[in-house]
Amino acid sequence: MSSSSDFAIEIQKVQDSKISDVDFDNITFGNTFTDYMLVCDFKNGEWQKPIIKPYEPFLIDPSAKVFHYGQAIFEGMKAYKDEHDEVWLFRPDENFHRFNKSAVRMAMPEVPEVVFMEGLKTIIDLERNWVKSGLGNTLYIRPFMIAIGSGVIAQPSTQYRFMIILSPAKSYYSGAVKVVIADHYSRAANGGIGAAKAAGNYSAQFYPTKLANDKGFQQIIWTDDATHTKLEEAGTMNVFFRINDTLYTAPTSERILDGVTRKSIIALAKREGIDVQERSVLVDEIVAAAQNSTLKEIFGAGTAAVVSPIAAFSYQEIEYVLPVIEDSFASQLKDKLTKIQYKLAEDTFGWTVKI
Amino acid sequence: MSSSSDFAIEIQKVQDSKISDVDFDNITFGNTFTDYMLVCDFKNGEWQKPIIKPYEPFLIDPSAKVFHYGQAIFEGMKAYKDEHDEVWLFRPDENFHRFNKSAVRMAMPEVPEVVFMEGLKTIIDLERNWVKSGLGNTLYIRPFMIAIGSGVIAQPSTQYRFMIILSPAKSYYSGAVKVVIADHYSRAANGGIGAAKAAGNYSAQFYPTKLANDKGFQQIIWTDDATHTKLEEAGTMNVFFRINDTLYTAPTSERILDGVTRKSIIALAKREGIDVQERSVLVDEIVAAAQNSTLKEIFGAGTAAVVSPIAAFSYQEIEYVLPVIEDSFASQLKDKLTKIQYKLAEDTFGWTVKI
Repeated sequence: MSSSSDFAIEIQKVQDSKISDVDFDNITFGNTFTDYMLVCDFKNGEWQKPIIKPYEPFLIDPSAKVFHYGQAIFEGMKAYKDEHDEVWLFRPDENFHRFNKSAVRMAMPEVPEVVFMEGLKTIIDLERNWVKSGLGNTLYIRPFMIAIGSGVIAQPSTQYRFMIILSPAKSYYSGAVKVVIADHYSRAANGGIGAAKAAGNYSAQFYPTKLANDKGFQQIIWTDDATHTKLEEAGTMNVFFRINDTLYTAPTSERILDGVTRKSIIALAKREGIDVQERSVLVDEIVAAAQNSTLKEIFGAGTAAVVSPIAAFSYQEIEYVLPVIEDSFASQLKDKLTKIQYKLAEDTFGWTVKI
Repeated sequence: MSSSSDFAIEIQKVQDSKISDVDFDNITFGNTFTDYMLVCDFKNGEWQKPIIKPYEPFLIDPSAKVFHYGQAIFEGMKAYKDEHDEVWLFRPDENFHRFNKSAVRMAMPEVPEVVFMEGLKTIIDLERNWVKSGLGNTLYIRPFMIAIGSGVIAQPSTQYRFMIILSPAKSYYSGAVKVVIADHYSRAANGGIGAAKAAGNYSAQFYPTKLANDKGFQQIIWTDDATHTKLEEAGTMNVFFRINDTLYTAPTSERILDGVTRKSIIALAKREGIDVQERSVLVDEIVAAAQNSTLKEIFGAGTAAVVSPIAAFSYQEIEYVLPVIEDSFASQLKDKLTKIQYKLAEDTFGWTVKI
């Protein structure tokens, strides 16, 4: 298959929509799915025709390589509805390119741009009733790819399945988020897969996160695994630190995910005249800044969480509480970002794409 | 469920065995499966009744957490047939304990000993015709567990599936194995999941291994990710280095799998009077030993590969060829190990368990 027309999407209609069963005011993140899913298989060395069909379980062999060797990658995106009932994506090209970077690192085939982008547009257009208007209401979009080829030998699969599934969502976190700074466990190795949105990166964090949860903390800020002196990311969010009026965040690396929200926040902050520095942020300097009260804010940035202010952090069993400040960078930047996403402010960056 | 009797295994018989379709003399590793699989689900906080049923694909939700967050672990084991047609396992207790250590690290529920051990014995007993006699013939056993709970939120699943599948096998590698010593990519982080037999550890190696394959090397010997100066393991095998008449291997750590073949080789070598040292092995000392001809052997040790002699290694684009020696430690130790496994020599260690 080589031309776009080979990838024309077949649509198999559902009998009845499930939408009337959904209580959109009381929805938990990631548990409700829309009527359709997009499926596109890779076999015999090429991508097959994409199909949009009713969302449902599928059959897979017990020896499928995704179960044994973890060949699986994903993206997280959102669609937003504006006041005129138009539906918008936010920087989908960034997710597409990152998806294929993840694919390369995990020895999986790259998905053709037409399959990813036209697939997104077609399925979201079909499901536009599931995108509710109003700030905070979104349709969470989960493109992912898994190795479906069979065989218990540790080698890349020859068969893959690319899918897009959709889940209506409200905001991800509620309440004050307290974090632990990692001093033993780690998320990523030098020369590892930390920069890829690979499934295995997430389950690796569950146990240390559970230990943090048991002590009353919701998330971990990971540090470099060799020295545990450099602050990196929070696993589902990149992290920003405000000391006085300067905003610091770790540079992306092979250990850190190149977050779309991260780079958007940096661009917005710079436009607002905020001094943003992308450089290694040391645990010691953040602890010192907390002690001398120059540490004003810490916040996470990610698609699911958007911008998530951190209320306190713990490092080596000592808890540091952050001040509650008016008109924080976090709230200013979140406001500017969401207004662009919902088309309530002019998109001077050209980030939004209409469905 | 709390007593063993609650885990009594139900068996659903196949109509006809597939065994007569299998050409046991021309079998590739990991692609042929026996008639049955064992399935035991975890839900509502407890393990359900195990079932042995015909091997077949099963239905799973597109949002299953194994696809998105990589909660998946496995073990690799083998069954052997002796000259009296009895079938034996090799140190299955080691695999059981390691499986549950992996489960803890990946925030998955531990599998009850009765489910794992009686499950193994029952399914292998049922499939004993698939275990062929003769050195090199084995039944490869793959116990594994995956997160089958649905939902695209990065949290541990509440539902899991433990399975055992079986694949008749001959020896894993053929021909001389040449390896690359890693100087950029890495397998595991300090504080990471390298010591767990987690699915994500394997796919993370596929891309660097493909780069090595493209240069004519089959495997990579991983080094520590922080300095790339310490030799660790080969991803599907632990690694031994013989300098003069001393055998060196890296100590197990949170970055290195505690291999059953590794510890058996160490015990056998010690019994033979070989000086075995478990300590950090530096790249520099191996390169120096290769240059001054004191490096006599390198070999891998793992369940699938058993003992796999390394013919040459490459480090920073320079290739070092190992001498071909008579009566190598690798061949001596492989011979002693396999004779115990096939009941051709007395098992003074008590490693073998009859089905």
